[in-house]
Amino acid sequence: MAQKPSIPKGTRDFSPEEMAKRNYIFDTIKSVYKTYGFQPIETPAMENLSTLLGKYGEEGDKLLFKILNSGDFTSGADASEFNSDRANVLSTKICEKGLRYDLTVPFARYVVQHQNEITFPFKRYQIQPVWRADRPQKGRYREFFQCDADVIGSKSLLNEVELVQIIDTAFNKFGINVLIKINNRKILSGIAEVIGHPDKLIDITVAIDKIDKIGLDAVNAELEGRGIEHSAIEKLQPIITLSGTTESKLEKLREVLSTSEVGMKGIEELAIIFGYLATLNITQEVELDLSLARGLNYYTGAIFEVKSKDTEIGSICGGGRYDDLTGIFGLKDVSGVGISFGADRIYDVLNTLNKYPENSMVGTQLLFINFGKAEELFCLPVMASLRAQGVAVEIYPESAKMKKQMDYANKRNIPFVAIVGENEMQKQVVSLKNMITGEQQEVPVGELIAHLPR
Amino acid sequence: MAQKPSIPKGTRDFSPEEMAKRNYIFDTIKSVYKTYGFQPIETPAMENLSTLLGKYGEEGDKLLFKILNSGDFTSGADASEFNSDRANVLSTKICEKGLRYDLTVPFARYVVQHQNEITFPFKRYQIQPVWRADRPQKGRYREFFQCDADVIGSKSLLNEVELVQIIDTAFNKFGINVLIKINNRKILSGIAEVIGHPDKLIDITVAIDKIDKIGLDAVNAELEGRGIEHSAIEKLQPIITLSGTTESKLEKLREVLSTSEVGMKGIEELAIIFGYLATLNITQEVELDLSLARGLNYYTGAIFEVKSKDTEIGSICGGGRYDDLTGIFGLKDVSGVGISFGADRIYDVLNTLNKYPENSMVGTQLLFINFGKAEELFCLPVMASLRAQGVAVEIYPESAKMKKQMDYANKRNIPFVAIVGENEMQKQVVSLKNMITGEQQEVPVGELIAHLPR
Repeated sequence: MAQKPSIPKGTRDFSPEEMAKRNYIFDTIKSVYKTYGFQPIETPAMENLSTLLGKYGEEGDKLLFKILNSGDFTSGADASEFNSDRANVLSTKICEKGLRYDLTVPFARYVVQHQNEITFPFKRYQIQPVWRADRPQKGRYREFFQCDADVIGSKSLLNEVELVQIIDTAFNKFGINVLIKINNRKILSGIAEVIGHPDKLIDITVAIDKIDKIGLDAVNAELEGRGIEHSAIEKLQPIITLSGTTESKLEKLREVLSTSEVGMKGIEELAIIFGYLATLNITQEVELDLSLARGLNYYTGAIFEVKSKDTEIGSICGGGRYDDLTGIFGLKDVSGVGISFGADRIYDVLNTLNKYPENSMVGTQLLFINFGKAEELFCLPVMASLRAQGVAVEIYPESAKMKKQMDYANKRNIPFVAIVGENEMQKQVVSLKNMITGEQQEVPVGELIAHLPR
Repeated sequence: MAQKPSIPKGTRDFSPEEMAKRNYIFDTIKSVYKTYGFQPIETPAMENLSTLLGKYGEEGDKLLFKILNSGDFTSGADASEFNSDRANVLSTKICEKGLRYDLTVPFARYVVQHQNEITFPFKRYQIQPVWRADRPQKGRYREFFQCDADVIGSKSLLNEVELVQIIDTAFNKFGINVLIKINNRKILSGIAEVIGHPDKLIDITVAIDKIDKIGLDAVNAELEGRGIEHSAIEKLQPIITLSGTTESKLEKLREVLSTSEVGMKGIEELAIIFGYLATLNITQEVELDLSLARGLNYYTGAIFEVKSKDTEIGSICGGGRYDDLTGIFGLKDVSGVGISFGADRIYDVLNTLNKYPENSMVGTQLLFINFGKAEELFCLPVMASLRAQGVAVEIYPESAKMKKQMDYANKRNIPFVAIVGENEMQKQVVSLKNMITGEQQEVPVGELIAHLPR
């Protein structure tokens, strides 16, 4: 039976060309993480649902992919529960496991589970796919990779500084101009406190977050709609419209938030971070941005977000400090700070700007044309020697027509072709053809490697 | 609420140390695949169940992890179907997707789906996890990685030859002594044909496999017990007791199978493969082994299996040729041949033999001891310069007690520590301590890199 093959919506196959680009992105990020002493870990694709449920809000729970129990999954429930009203309850009775939704909760689980084996402060990176049953749309997938780095078990602001250095270095390597936005959740708490609405922190940050999209008037209207009175909104105005240098912004904030202990603490944290950054060679633009709130509720200190300056693609990296991530799993008072690169969006930015380095795209460097058995027996040892030196070479597996073999080299973007016939075998040479220039020359087999790009 | 954190049975977390070992394995395999012109692809973790079901036999269908449909999953079925007798039927009504069970079926699906974009012959490698709801036991996991390489769209036996070269090279790089066993499914078919029992193929190979363990008499008794008559068992004797060089084995087989067209074809294929291999520098032992059948039914030509000679760990690599893998998805007559490295078992072999190269295990090379803010400001630019040259360095994030910082370096196996106090800052040097020898020397900051291992 022939089936028309397809894959689930929101998922993707990655072709060799796409893999080369993606590997370039992942390898670049990894190489930077490593130079800062971050170590890789991996966690299983499946976590117990008890680990995942309740960690991402009600919306998040609905977006978890649940895995049906093996064998007789009906044993945990009964037929009377099988109706649409109770689908959510029933699902947790017939499913014990789910696919990971992000790398943060599995990491928290990992740290608690392995706390006795871990040397703290623990600097880990993790690059793995996550799955969300979101409605697929342009740039949003149901399976996508996250590239996280976190330091856990250290409150030092040096960690924040190093994460900014990592962001700076990575985007320099990519050749992408970015704006690195920094804020501090404590400042946002201070603002809520000063205007007399500590309970409205989320409402305020959500509103401030929209300033770029909907403008000041709409933000003010929204704040009013959320039950914040006029006088409090008044007090917010200098903060929402804050501008100037980082130093002057911090100065203004010190005035406005002088009565808020938490607010002043946030300002001091940022002052220290920006102080260190000023002594380092940060080449990308770094900006204090009070409108930066980010969705996640667990941030308690610094917040980071990175935007590409030369494209309209949104946030391509983000993160922040959280003071009690592992508490949900029973390990209290372990502070952490981390960032996450958005590989899919960086991919889009690099495609838009056409910034992939050429050498990251080359696979096979040399194709031996196949003229038959005698020639194969001549070529194979030559190829083995090149391969032993790390060169990627192929021989066309059949003595097909020359045109077919050359077509194969062209379609595969193989830059060099080796033509070996009777004449070449006798002279112990190879006719080496440059597929881009069309140039062809005889090269002794022992000197082949010197003629190939490394 | 504090939960005791755990992961689903049969799954694993990988610590930094385990990741370093696993990455060494994957990177080695990848590097060999690449030098032979294989290109990477990746497919989604989730496939449509219609792609997976019926491809792995009845047992395999039961071992698929199924993913509950999002939203109201009950809409596709009704309560009367919710009972244990019909659990299997019901599961396909409430689940459309499943986790991939291997890389072969998704690859076949990929080739058919993307046939118009692919340049054939298509040499692809794929290293991704697969999931099976098997009963977990020592060395058997519910999530594990496969490392496959296949050539599809070429019937040339050169492909088989290159796959043996790849196996040889990879295990040479690992430093593992292996026995590479080769057989051909056509020869097995020929044997079954000649003795008049085409249906008893598996019984015969199982019997041949036991010759070394239980002896000829017991093997013959077993064949009789499986309903093979005396005259047929007689005919099998020269095959079961086949020994000597590959050449003499093939000669004997030519006699015994002279009346079987398919058998003679299999012999000629093997003769060609062994002929090529003899001209190449294969250093691992390669053997024609008629007992080699492998579980999968789709092999139609060469069959490979690799065993470690110095450990009791079973098969660590295997593969073969299949003539119609993509037929199930509607693309007929596309022949392929492939191999798969068993990363988990190679991991066990390398652990048993303690064969990991030391440099693959080093993460951070140098830890800067933290004595406070002034020293931090001195060290950070020095560190940035080292990192820009690719060296992995860290600074302890707090000015904790010296002992605590040195303990951190020891536990992390960081080979060098940099001590920078007031004296060192004035002289623009670093006191570099070798953590293994205990040796300590002053090194000018500009010369640090020369003192670190690359």
